[in-house]
Amino acid sequence: MSDRTETRTGWLTPDELSTARDLVPMVYVEAVPVRVDGEGRIAEVALLLAVRPDGRLRRAVVSGRVLHGELVREALVRHLEKDLGPMALPRLPVSPAPFTIVEYFPDEDVTGFHDPRHHAVALAYVVPVDGDCAPSQEALDLVWVTPEEAVSEEVRAEMSPGHARLVRLALAHGGCLP
Amino acid sequence: MSDRTETRTGWLTPDELSTARDLVPMVYVEAVPVRVDGEGRIAEVALLLAVRPDGRLRRAVVSGRVLHGELVREALVRHLEKDLGPMALPRLPVSPAPFTIVEYFPDEDVTGFHDPRHHAVALAYVVPVDGDCAPSQEALDLVWVTPEEAVSEEVRAEMSPGHARLVRLALAHGGCLP
Amino acid sequence: MSDRTETRTGWLTPDELSTARDLVPMVYVEAVPVRVDGEGRIAEVALLLAVRPDGRLRRAVVSGRVLHGELVREALVRHLEKDLGPMALPRLPVSPAPFTIVEYFPDEDVTGFHDPRHHAVALAYVVPVDGDCAPSQEALDLVWVTPEEAVSEEVRAEMSPGHARLVRLALAHGGCLP
Amino acid sequence: MSDRTETRTGWLTPDELSTARDLVPMVYVEAVPVRVDGEGRIAEVALLLAVRPDGRLRRAVVSGRVLHGELVREALVRHLEKDLGPMALPRLPVSPAPFTIVEYFPDEDVTGFHDPRHHAVALAYVVPVDGDCAPSQEALDLVWVTPEEAVSEEVRAEMSPGHARLVRLALAHGGCLP
Repeated sequence: MSDRTETRTGWLTPDELSTARDLVPMVYVEAVPVRVDGEGRIAEVALLLAVRPDGRLRRAVVSGRVLHGELVREALVRHLEKDLGPMALPRLPVSPAPFTIVEYFPDEDVTGFHDPRHHAVALAYVVPVDGDCAPSQEALDLVWVTPEEAVSEEVRAEMSPGHARLVRLALAHGGCLP
Repeated sequence: MSDRTETRTGWLTPDELSTARDLVPMVYVEAVPVRVDGEGRIAEVALLLAVRPDGRLRRAVVSGRVLHGELVREALVRHLEKDLGPMALPRLPVSPAPFTIVEYFPDEDVTGFHDPRHHAVALAYVVPVDGDCAPSQEALDLVWVTPEEAVSEEVRAEMSPGHARLVRLALAHGGCLP
Repeated sequence: MSDRTETRTGWLTPDELSTARDLVPMVYVEAVPVRVDGEGRIAEVALLLAVRPDGRLRRAVVSGRVLHGELVREALVRHLEKDLGPMALPRLPVSPAPFTIVEYFPDEDVTGFHDPRHHAVALAYVVPVDGDCAPSQEALDLVWVTPEEAVSEEVRAEMSPGHARLVRLALAHGGCLP
Repeated sequence: MSDRTETRTGWLTPDELSTARDLVPMVYVEAVPVRVDGEGRIAEVALLLAVRPDGRLRRAVVSGRVLHGELVREALVRHLEKDLGPMALPRLPVSPAPFTIVEYFPDEDVTGFHDPRHHAVALAYVVPVDGDCAPSQEALDLVWVTPEEAVSEEVRAEMSPGHARLVRLALAHGGCLP
């Protein structure tokens, strides 16, 4: 693999980002961080507390943009580290295929996944983490919830409708949607 | 679903497209069109003959950009129709998750998937088609090949290395990689 | 492919079936029949009304044993035809991989999927059907419900807890779990 | 979860196993053990050297029967430990769905996957292993090969045609089939 780091032009000024958002869909990755038991089953789901695109403070999963010149796997590792800290030890899946895709629109009626800033296509992954997670940078807090708690009315009310649904899809993928 | 057609801003001028390409990765869809037998197995793969991004005439699968404001499923239907004609009757998969993703870079050493124009993240699907396929618009010709033929040296030599590999991944997904 | 029909020994006497059930897990297929729209999205789910293994009359999806000598795809077509009639025109998925597996045990606490008769490993598929469906043989009735209806308390109460959960997993796979 | 260990009846006498094999398909699990890099990509594949069902000494992946009363995840852990030793630290996938299924028949023309002993339906998984692997019990030897080596003529010739194909399907699932 060539050394792409030096020539990577992924970081944009606010003006450039605004321009791009008006022209094309953004590529996003979303990761549902989980603890698994010794046989691979989801035991707990990590939910961050962070200010979301709509300006509200919410429980959320890991989410972020893929930069120009960046591989999807690199973006996943970068955003997991940014939100869970450098000791989280994420275990990216072997398959590059997301378990689902989520399409965000400024119009919340299109898909039910809403982002007032732009149209984005998010590749969603379930990512077991083995290490110590600590909320970092934008995330104010981090809680671990069981699958049962994750789908409860109480926890769902603390998430955006989109992320609450994404967590249910992730649990279904793991065969443990209650 | 709201009426998004009137406000869709997906079509770009060459200048706008060039600007976007320099800023962010493009979202693409790629579809491997197949004929299936009565039990769902891949019997044949459709290969177009088209001028590719590198200016060469090659065998290729269906490929194209997702427009701003366009759903991935809409983009798939649009590109399948554009390349296979309006009578192809594509059967999009039930799951929105691509069977694999393919990352194109201007530097052909990064992933082996090469596009001199831009960095693109392509969501790849295998799509059974039931109707009459006729090459249309950019596609000059269309041939149907068996899985064995699709992986033969002869047919691989007529495709870009990336699409030849994508076809093998599609056959593997269908359980019929020879 | 050799002519295996004549030598197939799949049909068992009640005594043989009882013997096998005591020795090894049974291989089952389960199919969630759906109607899809022109872009592949699940629009409706078919629910049969049938006497279930526990002797109760319930709403259920298509389910049945894979016979000795029978391919999984053959078993799927056979059971879909048996339950939905010969005009249902099922569209089996291209991939042989089930979207999930379900493990049935006589002890209902093991996985929540309960079959008093035996331990069975069921490969589960979502299968679009295009034709006319008519309940046949064991199925007394057939209704089509929307994804919203399928997850409603009312419809869930008419299914076994296992099949109610399997339907939710199928909708999640299709990206349309409400 | 109830205590099923005491009542588990999975172990069969040779006569019982022979009886079951004549009546119903066996449920198998197959695991392709891999080393992954820090971003989840397959770096190496483990191949055992073992006497196969046809009596020949071959390179092979981990493979074995699911016992009566045993969960698929339990069977995977048991067979991985049996073949790779107790320090292998396998990381079972989050999703219970196999990446493909493989159907074995005594007649090698049915699917190309051949087992002279019985009809078996195998659920196949790619399993990253983190720890120290040592061939144990039936496995005489264990080698690690790169994806390129795994698909080479030389290595393929040391495997059964079925396992050589299964390894290619596993690499395709991981997006790294050469």
